[in-house]
Amino acid sequence: MSLLVVGSMAFDSIKSPFGEVERVVGGSATYFSLAASYLSPVRMVSVVGRDFPKATLDLLASRNVDTQGVTVAEGDTFHWQGYYDFDLNTAHTVKTELNVFSDFAPVLPESYRDTPCVFLGNIAPSIQLDILRQVRSPRLIALDTMNYWIESALPELKQVIAKVDIVVVNEGEIRELTGEYNLVKAARALMSWGPSRVVIKRGEYGVLHVAGHHMFAAPAYPLETIFDPTGAGDSFAGGFMGYLASCGDRTLDEMDYRLATMYGSAIASFTVEAFSTARLQSLSQEDISARLSAFRTLTEFTI
Amino acid sequence: MSLLVVGSMAFDSIKSPFGEVERVVGGSATYFSLAASYLSPVRMVSVVGRDFPKATLDLLASRNVDTQGVTVAEGDTFHWQGYYDFDLNTAHTVKTELNVFSDFAPVLPESYRDTPCVFLGNIAPSIQLDILRQVRSPRLIALDTMNYWIESALPELKQVIAKVDIVVVNEGEIRELTGEYNLVKAARALMSWGPSRVVIKRGEYGVLHVAGHHMFAAPAYPLETIFDPTGAGDSFAGGFMGYLASCGDRTLDEMDYRLATMYGSAIASFTVEAFSTARLQSLSQEDISARLSAFRTLTEFTI
Repeated sequence: MSLLVVGSMAFDSIKSPFGEVERVVGGSATYFSLAASYLSPVRMVSVVGRDFPKATLDLLASRNVDTQGVTVAEGDTFHWQGYYDFDLNTAHTVKTELNVFSDFAPVLPESYRDTPCVFLGNIAPSIQLDILRQVRSPRLIALDTMNYWIESALPELKQVIAKVDIVVVNEGEIRELTGEYNLVKAARALMSWGPSRVVIKRGEYGVLHVAGHHMFAAPAYPLETIFDPTGAGDSFAGGFMGYLASCGDRTLDEMDYRLATMYGSAIASFTVEAFSTARLQSLSQEDISARLSAFRTLTEFTI
Repeated sequence: MSLLVVGSMAFDSIKSPFGEVERVVGGSATYFSLAASYLSPVRMVSVVGRDFPKATLDLLASRNVDTQGVTVAEGDTFHWQGYYDFDLNTAHTVKTELNVFSDFAPVLPESYRDTPCVFLGNIAPSIQLDILRQVRSPRLIALDTMNYWIESALPELKQVIAKVDIVVVNEGEIRELTGEYNLVKAARALMSWGPSRVVIKRGEYGVLHVAGHHMFAAPAYPLETIFDPTGAGDSFAGGFMGYLASCGDRTLDEMDYRLATMYGSAIASFTVEAFSTARLQSLSQEDISARLSAFRTLTEFTI
């Protein structure tokens, strides 16, 4: 089953305790699409400038990602500059140059409008709403957001949250969004606005998944070498949604959502092993299966 | 199999966003012993002042805890005053009055000297070493410590660490102790000093367990009501060691250590539901079994 994603494509300039890179390919939709492409076909909606490498668009196309919905606009690509200290859970922004992204007003290609799974990446809630007006009765809609939108566009954000099935956010964001510090209470508050599931990303601590009275906690994989956490959350979302899309028409049950969470966690654990998309774009199905098994070994116990 | 613990008994004065209590019973050995007593007989080594409630000593005695090794000294009991903000992972100390604890130089009762399992609670490394000189060939020794000893008594601390099987510390402590930020590297560094296992406590994020090339990650139970995290780490250690002691003479395998970790996590998850030891002292075996099952439901997935 196809999966539509709308989000950013970008250049990132990143400093971490383990190195420094300038203007490497990044963006939430890029990480999401590469991650999801291991599991299902992806339809991408984004905008880049004339300076964006054709090689990346070609790579995406070669990996089952439809880039028809990626506009190449006059001007420069979105550029994020930031750094990490040893605490790799916190990204510090130095500079954000929106460039062509500031006029982003996507019009979906006709061939995208019946996509059954939709992921609204971290962009303005008004654009997220606009995308939902353009798709025809998707089966599953998920959304990501960030503190910037919580602070500047809360009414629109609540409007779009009411229309989605799953919210994927990090723990700081859900606390800010709901005003509840306790994550279980925060998840329940968020679900009272409409969504039936909340997936809370906790960086190196993993993921907490709440749906009705079900809870699922998955650790992040404890790695000895983490070079760059950029894109880990988007890769997680890509693997998560990619697996759900791969289930096709059948009714999803709790165990599907759990396995989706593990696919997301497994793929994200590779992303952080190198800067930019280097590791993410070169995985094999065997790499992913082996990491899934490693997750099982990491978490299993017998009562 | 019996379990010896040496550590503090105290009065705690605590403020959290959920309330405030003054001079309630606390201390690492108190929490540890109550937690462990659900699984194995405990022999306690500590010191209290004349002001310590006899009712607490009686309660311990009624729960399979031998308090022969608890000295009642002239003077006041150790008193800790602190507070928590919404981030319940971080205790802020306002005042520490060592009182009778400042002259703590335990001499083990003869009946304690053959105890097969020993837990060296968070006290001066010189006292931990002294305890090890007084016991006769225990089968299993574990140790806890804290930043104060890492900063003020590192040579003695390394000496005692070299003699133990398991180190139980929180993630800030192991980073400070080894100078490695990455937890997998930090655990390997610590194991190179002698211990074969490292159990890293991560507060509301759970526990990471490293032994040789085995890793085990357990979440903390996501609770809607956490009143007071004081004693959670000590209750975890008590449940963990209590289970290992309950295995008796048989050789422990990886799955035993994992189940021990889950017993510790289950019992600790009750401790934080009330101030002081209120909840911890009133558990049933059914409560603990139900929480263990809830942990399994929380973490299971099918590939």
